Amino acid sequence: MPTTNRQWKLAARPKDLVTPDVLQLSDSPLLPLEDGQALARVKYFSIDPTMRIWMADIPQYMPPVQLGEVMRSFGLAEVTESRNPSFKEGDKLVGFTGLQEYLVVTGKEPNPFQKAPSIPFLSDSNFLGTLGLNGLTAYFGLLDVGKPKSGETLVVSAAAGATGSIAGQIGKIQGCRVVGIAGSDEKCKWVKDKLGFDTAINYKSPDWKAQLVAATPSGVDINFENVGGEVMHGVLDRMNLNGRVVLCGLISGYSKAGSSEVDPTLASFGNILMRRLRVQGFIVIDYVSRFMEAGQQLGMWKMTGKIKDRQTIVQGFEKAPEAINMLFQGSNIGKLLIQL
Amino acid sequence: MPTTNRQWKLAARPKDLVTPDVLQLSDSPLLPLEDGQALARVKYFSIDPTMRIWMADIPQYMPPVQLGEVMRSFGLAEVTESRNPSFKEGDKLVGFTGLQEYLVVTGKEPNPFQKAPSIPFLSDSNFLGTLGLNGLTAYFGLLDVGKPKSGETLVVSAAAGATGSIAGQIGKIQGCRVVGIAGSDEKCKWVKDKLGFDTAINYKSPDWKAQLVAATPSGVDINFENVGGEVMHGVLDRMNLNGRVVLCGLISGYSKAGSSEVDPTLASFGNILMRRLRVQGFIVIDYVSRFMEAGQQLGMWKMTGKIKDRQTIVQGFEKAPEAINMLFQGSNIGKLLIQL
Repeated sequence: MPTTNRQWKLAARPKDLVTPDVLQLSDSPLLPLEDGQALARVKYFSIDPTMRIWMADIPQYMPPVQLGEVMRSFGLAEVTESRNPSFKEGDKLVGFTGLQEYLVVTGKEPNPFQKAPSIPFLSDSNFLGTLGLNGLTAYFGLLDVGKPKSGETLVVSAAAGATGSIAGQIGKIQGCRVVGIAGSDEKCKWVKDKLGFDTAINYKSPDWKAQLVAATPSGVDINFENVGGEVMHGVLDRMNLNGRVVLCGLISGYSKAGSSEVDPTLASFGNILMRRLRVQGFIVIDYVSRFMEAGQQLGMWKMTGKIKDRQTIVQGFEKAPEAINMLFQGSNIGKLLIQL
Repeated sequence: MPTTNRQWKLAARPKDLVTPDVLQLSDSPLLPLEDGQALARVKYFSIDPTMRIWMADIPQYMPPVQLGEVMRSFGLAEVTESRNPSFKEGDKLVGFTGLQEYLVVTGKEPNPFQKAPSIPFLSDSNFLGTLGLNGLTAYFGLLDVGKPKSGETLVVSAAAGATGSIAGQIGKIQGCRVVGIAGSDEKCKWVKDKLGFDTAINYKSPDWKAQLVAATPSGVDINFENVGGEVMHGVLDRMNLNGRVVLCGLISGYSKAGSSEVDPTLASFGNILMRRLRVQGFIVIDYVSRFMEAGQQLGMWKMTGKIKDRQTIVQGFEKAPEAINMLFQGSNIGKLLIQL
């Protein structure tokens, strides 16, 4: 049994990309196994954008990694020695291995490891991608949140990434027209020629927005968003009425996570993502067929004093322009009216 | 019968507030009524933030008002003369009157007028506020989109406005803790003392965000958002997991609508609003209980070739920091892994 474990520990919080001071390589001793423990050696680390978020001391969907801790990561490890009947030599474990060569497992981890089965034609590493969190993210994000219907147009950003590439293909299986957005011609070619996306756009082309318009003649019904920022703004500008945005990632902003340079917009979309908010645009004219129902209820509340109101009434037809400005200057309380 | 109608016409598109060149007062002749027509005189105009949007030549939920047209507005008018059996003298009509003193109605308008009934204790003008579009907006926006549950915390911005003031009171009727945000101490006092909000915060106070934290000890479950910008960013920062944002208005940005000064963020939230998009933050760990279902389907798709994938594999434990950066530099295609 090995006696030393190499580990990448979080030594400083990054300000942008991961500079050499951020992760520190160190050795820690591996003690002989006790009853109930098993030793596993990592074969693959999954490298994911969210790791940059875990490094930042900001509210997020899991606790941030603390300084001095082994950096969190997903990975696949193989059991090499066991004093626990639930783990046998050769078992493949998928889960939070951390960025270290070895790990001691007990089966009592707060996020238990899954055993990866041996399946013909599948390599172990598939359990970190297509059959792992990326595939699962694409599957639930697109099907459960995006709710695609055959014939709809789906735009996927970071289309050549581990998640986007699967999301687009699931969109094709559902009968959607699928447009990918990626950052190089090579990526676009792969997505189009090998994965069967209907088309792909390199957002580094100066005319990418015009290309997006041409590629989405019926607008966009679903945006599977992995990028945020300018790319997302451009896609939102093509969305159809009642479209759906699966806000799955905001990689364009991640390298600034935790720095003071984050603009509030990005922070707001970050909050929507991390806290799984549902933000829904609402305009009352969509509810015309139910106005009668609401009017009766409102009238009842008003007449029984459960709802009170107040009016700011401006006298005179000629006051219309000033009255409109009052709204934006905050000079009215309650309902603003002009009386003629 | 009068022979002249005064009208406010859109003469120029505003760049910010409504300057004197934007709306032009002009006279137009009123011809004697023909069969099927009725004449109505406006008693009240409803003055609404959305009027500023209608003035801008940008995509929106109705066609923008064209230059030279009578400015669109909602209002209440009384029939003064009729040659149409559906309209009687004294009838009160609620709908798109336009900013003009008189209008000729036929009953064939694309947006038909509603007749306001005479109800004891209700004044005509209530049909433009609490029982009109503002009340209806608060009703459907909060109940249908926000889906409040008793005990939840609701934050309403523009809380002293025509819509926000009703939305907050409906929140109280539903058993929510309701916090209003408004732009003056007088407004806050009205909302709290007269309307029964639990508390109200003046966003012009330098410490309004600290006040918001204190006012929402259990976080925010629902944001009924009328304002956008800094106010909205601050509220989003207090949202609870799976919170809901009813994006009903973005008045902080309306006075810039149609100008080149609109920043892309605001434009994006504008798109979410105008196109009634649903934007939903998504993180796959919420679906742990269904991973088995998805894994089987993904495995089937992968093995039958319906889903293809690709890996970028970096060799060696010591490469971890560089590998993480590859994600943000766009240097991987497909799944990025480190093999040990």
